[in-house]
Amino acid sequence: MSDFDTVDAVVPILGEPKLLTPLESRKLDGSRLFVSDEDRVVIEVDAGRLVETVSAGKTVSAFEMAGPRRKIYFDPSKLRCALVTCGGLCPGLNGIIRSVVLELYYGYEVRNIYGIRYGLQGFISEYGHDILELTPDMVGDIIGNGGSFLGSSRGPQDVEAIVDCLERMNVGILFMVGGDGTLMAATKISDVITRRRLKISVVGIPKTIDNDIHMVSRSFGFDTAVGLATQSIRAAHNEARGYPNGIGLIKLMGRHSGFIAATAALAQQDVNFVLVPEVDFDLDGSEGLLAALERRLFDRSHAVIVVAEGAGQKFFDASDRKDPSGNTKLQDIGMFLKERIVRYFDELKISVSLKYIDPSYIIRSLPANANDHVFCSFLGRNAVHAAMAGKTRLLIGHWNNHFVHIPMSASAGRRKQIDPNGRLWQSVLEATGQGSLKNP
Amino acid sequence: MSDFDTVDAVVPILGEPKLLTPLESRKLDGSRLFVSDEDRVVIEVDAGRLVETVSAGKTVSAFEMAGPRRKIYFDPSKLRCALVTCGGLCPGLNGIIRSVVLELYYGYEVRNIYGIRYGLQGFISEYGHDILELTPDMVGDIIGNGGSFLGSSRGPQDVEAIVDCLERMNVGILFMVGGDGTLMAATKISDVITRRRLKISVVGIPKTIDNDIHMVSRSFGFDTAVGLATQSIRAAHNEARGYPNGIGLIKLMGRHSGFIAATAALAQQDVNFVLVPEVDFDLDGSEGLLAALERRLFDRSHAVIVVAEGAGQKFFDASDRKDPSGNTKLQDIGMFLKERIVRYFDELKISVSLKYIDPSYIIRSLPANANDHVFCSFLGRNAVHAAMAGKTRLLIGHWNNHFVHIPMSASAGRRKQIDPNGRLWQSVLEATGQGSLKNP
Amino acid sequence: MSDFDTVDAVVPILGEPKLLTPLESRKLDGSRLFVSDEDRVVIEVDAGRLVETVSAGKTVSAFEMAGPRRKIYFDPSKLRCALVTCGGLCPGLNGIIRSVVLELYYGYEVRNIYGIRYGLQGFISEYGHDILELTPDMVGDIIGNGGSFLGSSRGPQDVEAIVDCLERMNVGILFMVGGDGTLMAATKISDVITRRRLKISVVGIPKTIDNDIHMVSRSFGFDTAVGLATQSIRAAHNEARGYPNGIGLIKLMGRHSGFIAATAALAQQDVNFVLVPEVDFDLDGSEGLLAALERRLFDRSHAVIVVAEGAGQKFFDASDRKDPSGNTKLQDIGMFLKERIVRYFDELKISVSLKYIDPSYIIRSLPANANDHVFCSFLGRNAVHAAMAGKTRLLIGHWNNHFVHIPMSASAGRRKQIDPNGRLWQSVLEATGQGSLKNP
Amino acid sequence: MSDFDTVDAVVPILGEPKLLTPLESRKLDGSRLFVSDEDRVVIEVDAGRLVETVSAGKTVSAFEMAGPRRKIYFDPSKLRCALVTCGGLCPGLNGIIRSVVLELYYGYEVRNIYGIRYGLQGFISEYGHDILELTPDMVGDIIGNGGSFLGSSRGPQDVEAIVDCLERMNVGILFMVGGDGTLMAATKISDVITRRRLKISVVGIPKTIDNDIHMVSRSFGFDTAVGLATQSIRAAHNEARGYPNGIGLIKLMGRHSGFIAATAALAQQDVNFVLVPEVDFDLDGSEGLLAALERRLFDRSHAVIVVAEGAGQKFFDASDRKDPSGNTKLQDIGMFLKERIVRYFDELKISVSLKYIDPSYIIRSLPANANDHVFCSFLGRNAVHAAMAGKTRLLIGHWNNHFVHIPMSASAGRRKQIDPNGRLWQSVLEATGQGSLKNP
Repeated sequence: MSDFDTVDAVVPILGEPKLLTPLESRKLDGSRLFVSDEDRVVIEVDAGRLVETVSAGKTVSAFEMAGPRRKIYFDPSKLRCALVTCGGLCPGLNGIIRSVVLELYYGYEVRNIYGIRYGLQGFISEYGHDILELTPDMVGDIIGNGGSFLGSSRGPQDVEAIVDCLERMNVGILFMVGGDGTLMAATKISDVITRRRLKISVVGIPKTIDNDIHMVSRSFGFDTAVGLATQSIRAAHNEARGYPNGIGLIKLMGRHSGFIAATAALAQQDVNFVLVPEVDFDLDGSEGLLAALERRLFDRSHAVIVVAEGAGQKFFDASDRKDPSGNTKLQDIGMFLKERIVRYFDELKISVSLKYIDPSYIIRSLPANANDHVFCSFLGRNAVHAAMAGKTRLLIGHWNNHFVHIPMSASAGRRKQIDPNGRLWQSVLEATGQGSLKNP
Repeated sequence: MSDFDTVDAVVPILGEPKLLTPLESRKLDGSRLFVSDEDRVVIEVDAGRLVETVSAGKTVSAFEMAGPRRKIYFDPSKLRCALVTCGGLCPGLNGIIRSVVLELYYGYEVRNIYGIRYGLQGFISEYGHDILELTPDMVGDIIGNGGSFLGSSRGPQDVEAIVDCLERMNVGILFMVGGDGTLMAATKISDVITRRRLKISVVGIPKTIDNDIHMVSRSFGFDTAVGLATQSIRAAHNEARGYPNGIGLIKLMGRHSGFIAATAALAQQDVNFVLVPEVDFDLDGSEGLLAALERRLFDRSHAVIVVAEGAGQKFFDASDRKDPSGNTKLQDIGMFLKERIVRYFDELKISVSLKYIDPSYIIRSLPANANDHVFCSFLGRNAVHAAMAGKTRLLIGHWNNHFVHIPMSASAGRRKQIDPNGRLWQSVLEATGQGSLKNP
Repeated sequence: MSDFDTVDAVVPILGEPKLLTPLESRKLDGSRLFVSDEDRVVIEVDAGRLVETVSAGKTVSAFEMAGPRRKIYFDPSKLRCALVTCGGLCPGLNGIIRSVVLELYYGYEVRNIYGIRYGLQGFISEYGHDILELTPDMVGDIIGNGGSFLGSSRGPQDVEAIVDCLERMNVGILFMVGGDGTLMAATKISDVITRRRLKISVVGIPKTIDNDIHMVSRSFGFDTAVGLATQSIRAAHNEARGYPNGIGLIKLMGRHSGFIAATAALAQQDVNFVLVPEVDFDLDGSEGLLAALERRLFDRSHAVIVVAEGAGQKFFDASDRKDPSGNTKLQDIGMFLKERIVRYFDELKISVSLKYIDPSYIIRSLPANANDHVFCSFLGRNAVHAAMAGKTRLLIGHWNNHFVHIPMSASAGRRKQIDPNGRLWQSVLEATGQGSLKNP
Repeated sequence: MSDFDTVDAVVPILGEPKLLTPLESRKLDGSRLFVSDEDRVVIEVDAGRLVETVSAGKTVSAFEMAGPRRKIYFDPSKLRCALVTCGGLCPGLNGIIRSVVLELYYGYEVRNIYGIRYGLQGFISEYGHDILELTPDMVGDIIGNGGSFLGSSRGPQDVEAIVDCLERMNVGILFMVGGDGTLMAATKISDVITRRRLKISVVGIPKTIDNDIHMVSRSFGFDTAVGLATQSIRAAHNEARGYPNGIGLIKLMGRHSGFIAATAALAQQDVNFVLVPEVDFDLDGSEGLLAALERRLFDRSHAVIVVAEGAGQKFFDASDRKDPSGNTKLQDIGMFLKERIVRYFDELKISVSLKYIDPSYIIRSLPANANDHVFCSFLGRNAVHAAMAGKTRLLIGHWNNHFVHIPMSASAGRRKQIDPNGRLWQSVLEATGQGSLKNP
């Protein structure tokens, strides 16, 4: 964690907030309610390193604490806000939409809230998507549904055209919910806004069902996804135990990081092998997966394997194909493993019964659980607080149990991954007993 | 239903039941509790046809009602029973295992109950599977788990060897839980038993998650499977609504019959097209699926398709490949449709977002729901009652809301399917508005 | 079941249906789709009794089969329909509302469908409830929610005033979803309609979460309620096992019949005592509940008791208090048992840990499960078919696995109860081993 | 949070750990795997205060990080461990039992692991409870069940007798899972151990479904409980919307803190009033609950109220009654509110429909969800690591997203509560719009 020293945690601002927030006039005793920009959460919590940093006279990296400010930058009566959800679906999108709308409407008395439909496409007139005028009534009941009330789409759109649209609509705040690509787009949009000398705040709410955004310790929807993934593991385990030499093979989401696979394996402790993108493994050889699986079947006559979709890409030829969002398309490790395992035991003339389960979209398209509902409610409200205070180019994150402001510059272009030497992976190794799966 | 007249509903019997059931001595007022062989449930419930049959002096086809008999054939203190589960997993297997064991143990005071492991393999010594001696304690808690406590396997085994094993173990009753193939094996086993002049009762409990066994109006696990399948439909619907021209495509179990697909579509009324093996459909042409899908997207911009795995096999070359159980291997209609739909819209240069969900084993490997728990409890108990009374070569079925004895001969070799002119399919047509999907 | 002979199954009709149903003109090959009034389902399925009846030249009692008729009575283009839900909530109400509306709208092209709010109150102008004009869009998504989209209320309203309202609104069909009291009101409303020589069809859809309506073999919502009730049993079982001499006591719905209690006990087989209104039991004495419970604790050190709210009312003084719907208010058997059990063991100086769980409304206010969704969809559609054909004073029921028309006269004023000598209760006795709980 | 400066975070130790952990010999590259006592997590994360503290030369309060140590104190081959669960049930108990056993067995190769039955009673021979010898096989499948595999009991036992038992059994490590009272007992047990100069480590795992243990930012089972509580809110909301002037009143656990009530209200955003022990409220008067409820009904015609069981105790006379654990018995605020609300509207002659739901044990006796499963797995493993290293008189806690060692002295006798001026409660006020409910 030593690179935390270098984090630049300064959040850009459109201008000095001078207006009293509507909260202040309404509440009698609101004095303890507000958060000041001086309230900051240290990034590094290691006591030794912190003392060292301070003693050396260096600056302690710390994030601004999220929350309502006493003074705001925008005049609510004139403000127009836009909200867009981009990329893949994720449990909790509707919770964020709902809380952003409710906070703007009731917390700040903003009356012009535009829902942009189908992701960035919604800004581009050629697509012909309508704009929704969002009200509390429209979003009151949506958290019982999965998916996105606004719809989404993948892939980039012309940034100048997007800002044209914001100008035409006279938008003062743009809330963008999305992953990597979306947050990159948010930065570019902010660049154009700055160049055009506009006063538009851009606030990102990081979305990644894989939980792999840098500097974001927990992303919404992940908990729900893990819960749903355990269902597949339970089914696979029953299949594996149900037959002689039964093998249950489950592919779970996780293009670049295996958090879902690793966490679900810890939640449903019936897993014998977890394969993730962050940790290399061999198929062949005495320590490789196939031989280890053979030993497991010999000992216990059934086995359960969880593989993240991004694991084992070394087994495929390089591929340059990109999907519309510019993501590299992965080869299907699940089907590959299924074939290799079946062939391996065929050749050994050992009869096995392999069952392959790919829950795919089931774990991302269902409604959020209670935990994610609460989390999304806070994310949305804090995004509104930050934007109303005139802050921009930031993400709402969660760090050391506090909601914080993370400058886009601190997170962009980097990815959070499982540390093979960290606690999570060690726990997976202990829970599975899988060993290194690497030949010497 | 006119072929019901021809049903031979006579259940074979090993010999006259002469012993008083233990129930009789224990209960003070058990007189109303017992079922007589004279209690029979008419197969046909159409009033007109029934009157016609009777008036014409013909026999009215009727099944024996299941339930405990006052007199039993086997002496519980000497009896040994065996229980085996075969073929694919199905929610409720553990409920049946549990209720068979509890009824034998407490209801009839039978103390030697053998659990055969891993299906028919368990009878064949070469496989080396152990035999479990089942007690109430062992099975008390198993209904919370999916899968089969005994394990299962696919495919036939040598029938003579199976009967050898039964003889060696001195088994008087064999309970077989399984599908088509298993029930066929049960008949062959019974033939050998007869030929060898053994007194072994063979009672089948029909298992088919597809709900497609002839003369069995409802099979256990089906209700649970439908409930789980709706989860996939919900996810697919959210994906479809989440994107411009979103298409959710779900493949569900159903090799020869589409009951799961049709029923789940009625339960989760967000489906626009249901494709089942029983109803032919075209892909191309003005009334084919692709054009109908295009119209649906034009009208509503999203669509959900549910396809049973056995649908549309006409689009594939004949294939002779059989799986170990002798079932014809199906071509993958789900992947086929996915590719054809994507290609169709590619050629039209219409951008669509297709999401494919195949819950596969998830819908068969999880625990049964409350409804199936109750149903399985009755199935198991009634199987015991029938066998103790010396009946053999029968299935425990459910007909007109009563549990009944169905002679294996009446069910074997035929399959229940959706009637395209019946109420279920008409309801699907009304709920989806899909039309015929057939070109003139 | 011998009293079935006397059932009068003739359904009254407003007039001869002369119009061709819109279905007929739209479908090319609809010939097999329609149901004729000659299609009738025998009520009694006992083969012996049926043959006897026919041979004696008597009429076989049989219900009309539900389903669409080729000819209808009402002109869809002029028809106005009203739909009301009354009494306690029940899982599936929204499914019925939805399917009635969709069938009227798409199946018959009826455009004026009124939703009466808050039960019978909605007809009485003094309450000031608005009338909803129902469209497919309004009801498309409601099945994901529990409760009633229209709202409900308890208690009777002035019947003349209700018919006044129907006249004023020019309603041709009134769909009433409700229990005992509501169906009685439906009969009275029909009487007034007849007296005023109006042509208004009244179709009832019987609602009873307790599953206790005479001649209705299954009522919607019951399956969902049982499923939810098992959760409480599971919790109580864990509490009971969690402590020395742990007792879990669960009170479940069931004023006059114990179907929920009995069925849930069979579904979650951890119950040792089931107490229902239909079966008398003693508290004191050597065979009474308290001594039996003491023996159970001695043997196994934990026990689970399920009591239906209407059980054991003999332990209370007669009470004339009625609730607004005219139902007798029950004394609280749950709290009574709790106190008596605690006192009993206190006096014996045996330390016990009793945990009392009353899930109350939780089991009736949540969304229906898949099974009930399908069932409600059929109920609603068949109610529409019956009414469009001009039938009136009938209920939509389910008998011998077919949806049927039940004349209100055949069901009203009688209640279905558990037969203490029948299969269900015998299974409960076997599953619990509770014995008679009656002193000699 | 300024009182954190005073936290004494030093964890007592039985003696210097000198043995190499078995992990070390088994793993080739385990160097990064171990945690050192120098790894410490700051308690306070406010950057300003931290810098101030360091600059002033004061010590920064920090907890030891939990995790495996390279050197251990106990010799695994001779060690005997005991594990006990005390007090009320809580989702996750079985997860902790399982992970403690697995970590001891596989991680440290300890073979003598005793399960103490029924809480502290299990140490006292008079109760006659047997001791379980725990193995991985016994606990492998228990996480699917709620409750405690070991059983539990309430109330204190003689501390000297407990230590006598530990001595007799030659126990080296005692793992105690329990709440307030249990942790107090743990301290007393440790005192006796010290006085007798025994070398027994006592490690506590704090259990509180109410999430109210000081210095423990999250307690296991809380997340599951909140999820289950939302079910009751959903039901109550449907009841409230289902009737004219419908009121849904839900009582939730929370004797001294309202975390479950507040968090569940945020998760299921249909709640209009949340009442917790930490925040005073009036019933009468223009700003009191009753008048506020009347206004809500006037505006929206339905209302949902969530009350924590410990709220509003000022409305009752002081009561000295204690339950067996020495906890003050609360008066039933749920029934009290029900009566007061009904009476209030009766007097106003306003007809309301109030439905009262008390899920009681349902939210604590069911299995843990995925999130709590993972959490419990870490808690159990870290408890073992700490104890094996010879540490004692500590709790395993979670602070700033790290598992840490908390000296019992730092937590005992204090309770975590909702801060009425903090973020959680402010969010509840925003979500409900309930206002202060206090008259000026």
